[in-house]
Amino acid sequence: MPTLLQTIAQARPLIAKARAGGATVGFVPTMGALHSGHAALMQSCRRECELAVASIFVNPTQFAPTEDLERYPRTLESDLEICRQAGVDLVFHPTPREMYPNGLASTFVETPAFSSILEGAVRPGHFRGVATVVLKLFAIIQPDVAYFGQKDFQQLVVIQRMVDDLRLPVEIRAHPTAREADGLALSSRNRYLNAHERSSAPALYQSLVRARAAVQAGLKNGDRVRQILRETLESTAGVVTEYAEVVDDRTLEPLDNLEGRSAIALVAARLGSTRLIDNLYLRE
Amino acid sequence: MPTLLQTIAQARPLIAKARAGGATVGFVPTMGALHSGHAALMQSCRRECELAVASIFVNPTQFAPTEDLERYPRTLESDLEICRQAGVDLVFHPTPREMYPNGLASTFVETPAFSSILEGAVRPGHFRGVATVVLKLFAIIQPDVAYFGQKDFQQLVVIQRMVDDLRLPVEIRAHPTAREADGLALSSRNRYLNAHERSSAPALYQSLVRARAAVQAGLKNGDRVRQILRETLESTAGVVTEYAEVVDDRTLEPLDNLEGRSAIALVAARLGSTRLIDNLYLRE
Repeated sequence: MPTLLQTIAQARPLIAKARAGGATVGFVPTMGALHSGHAALMQSCRRECELAVASIFVNPTQFAPTEDLERYPRTLESDLEICRQAGVDLVFHPTPREMYPNGLASTFVETPAFSSILEGAVRPGHFRGVATVVLKLFAIIQPDVAYFGQKDFQQLVVIQRMVDDLRLPVEIRAHPTAREADGLALSSRNRYLNAHERSSAPALYQSLVRARAAVQAGLKNGDRVRQILRETLESTAGVVTEYAEVVDDRTLEPLDNLEGRSAIALVAARLGSTRLIDNLYLRE
Repeated sequence: MPTLLQTIAQARPLIAKARAGGATVGFVPTMGALHSGHAALMQSCRRECELAVASIFVNPTQFAPTEDLERYPRTLESDLEICRQAGVDLVFHPTPREMYPNGLASTFVETPAFSSILEGAVRPGHFRGVATVVLKLFAIIQPDVAYFGQKDFQQLVVIQRMVDDLRLPVEIRAHPTAREADGLALSSRNRYLNAHERSSAPALYQSLVRARAAVQAGLKNGDRVRQILRETLESTAGVVTEYAEVVDDRTLEPLDNLEGRSAIALVAARLGSTRLIDNLYLRE
C-alpha cells in the first residue's frame, strides 16, 4: 500500500528526503472517488517520476453553496487500492482544517476573466477554489511535474495559466479523457446516474463527435458548430443542455470562425440532478 | 560584485545547484533604492543562510494609477554596491515583462479583509500587488527564509498570513525598523523630502513614542491613544495625517481597549507630495 499522510508535517520531510536524493517528484491531485481516468494519470506519474505522489482531498472551496459537497462520493479504501495498483508511493489525504487553518475566507488565488465563462458562469467561484487548493497542494508537495486530465479542460487552462502567471516551478502534463466503451467520459459523478440517465449520457460525447466530423468535413462557422452540439443534446431524452460552446483552446475565447484556430468544443448538461461535462478538439 | 540575474531561466539553475549542495537559501525582496534598512536585512540573510539572494524589482501592480511608479527612484549601481557590501551572492533584477508575461491582468493573489484597511484603504489594490509579486518571487527563488522590515508592518502581516494560508514552504523573518538619529524611519521615499519637510518628518516617530510612553504609563483607551498620535502629527507644520491607528498586531483589528492585547500603533502622513508611514509596538 502507498504511505498515507494526513498532515503537511508528515508529508514535507518524506518528499524533501526523496528530492535531496535526486528524485523527480510527480503529483496527481484528486478529489478521490477514483476511476480509471485517475489511474491513467497515476500510471504516467509512476512511469515518468521517481517519487509518485497523489492527493485525495474533497476541496470545499470549489463547491458553490448549492452544490454537491456533502454528497460528493468518499471512497477512501477503494481509492487507496487504485493508488496501490498504479504504483503510487505517497498519498496525501489532509483534513479541511489542515488545508484551511484560518478558515475558508483567507488568502486565495484569483484567476483571469476566462474563468468566469463556461463552468465559471454556472459555478461562480469554482475556479478560484480550484486554483487556490492546487497552489496550496503544489506548495506542500513541491512537485516537478503535475498531471491533470483533459476532461476538465477549462480547469487545465486555468491551472496552466496560473503556473505561467505566477511562475510556479512545476510542469503541467495533460492526459486525454478516459471513456467508457460508448464514449461517456469517466467521471466521479457518473455513479449518480440512474439506468435511464446512464443510457442518455453518451449524448455529450456523440454531440462532440458529430461536431468534429462536420469541422473535419470543412465547416468553419462557430454558430453552426454550436447548433450541431445542441441538436444532438436536445434530441436525447432527459438531457438538459447548460452550454455548448466552441472556443480557442488557449484563451477560451468563443469562436465565430474556426479558420486557422485551434478549436475545442465543450458541452455541459444535466441528467436529472447530475451535471456532466465533456469536450473534444475539433481537428484531431 | 554579486551575480546579476535578469531572467528566471538564469536564476533557477544557479539556485537549484546551491540547494542541491545542501545550502539554505535566504531571500531579501526589494524595490531597490536601497538604504541601510535593506542592508541590515541582507546582512542577516548573509549571516543566517548559505546562499544570500536579493531581488530588485519596482513592481508596477502595487502602485495605484495615481501613485509614484514612474518617479519611484531607480538607483541600480549604488544598490548593487550595497548588496556587495552586505555579502549578497545573487541579485535578481527582472524586467516587468519577465515577471508579468501575460500582462498585469493575470492570475493574482487576493488577500484577506484586513488588507483593505489602513494602507489598503489609501492604496486600493496595493496588497494584492504586493502579495502577488512576493508569491512569484518565492516561486522563482524558492527561499527557505525571507526577510522583511517591520517598517511596512501591514505588508509583513499580509505576507505572513499568505504564507500561512497558502502553506508556502518559507519562513518569514521580520527586522526592526532602521531609523535616522532623529527617529525618522528609513524609507526610499525620504529622498523626496525638501529641507523643510525633512525637519518635520520625525513627527511620525515622535507621535508613536509619545503614545507608547502613555501606554507604558497605564493608558488603555484606544481612542485616547489615537488622539495622542494625531495631536503630535497635527501640531507639526506641513504634516497632513492620513491615519493614526492602534490595532491588534496579528489581526490588525482596531482596538477600543488595549488591555491584554499586543497593540501596535500605525501612522501615515503626507509631507508635501511625499507619503510616509511608521509604526511602533506600544508595550516594548
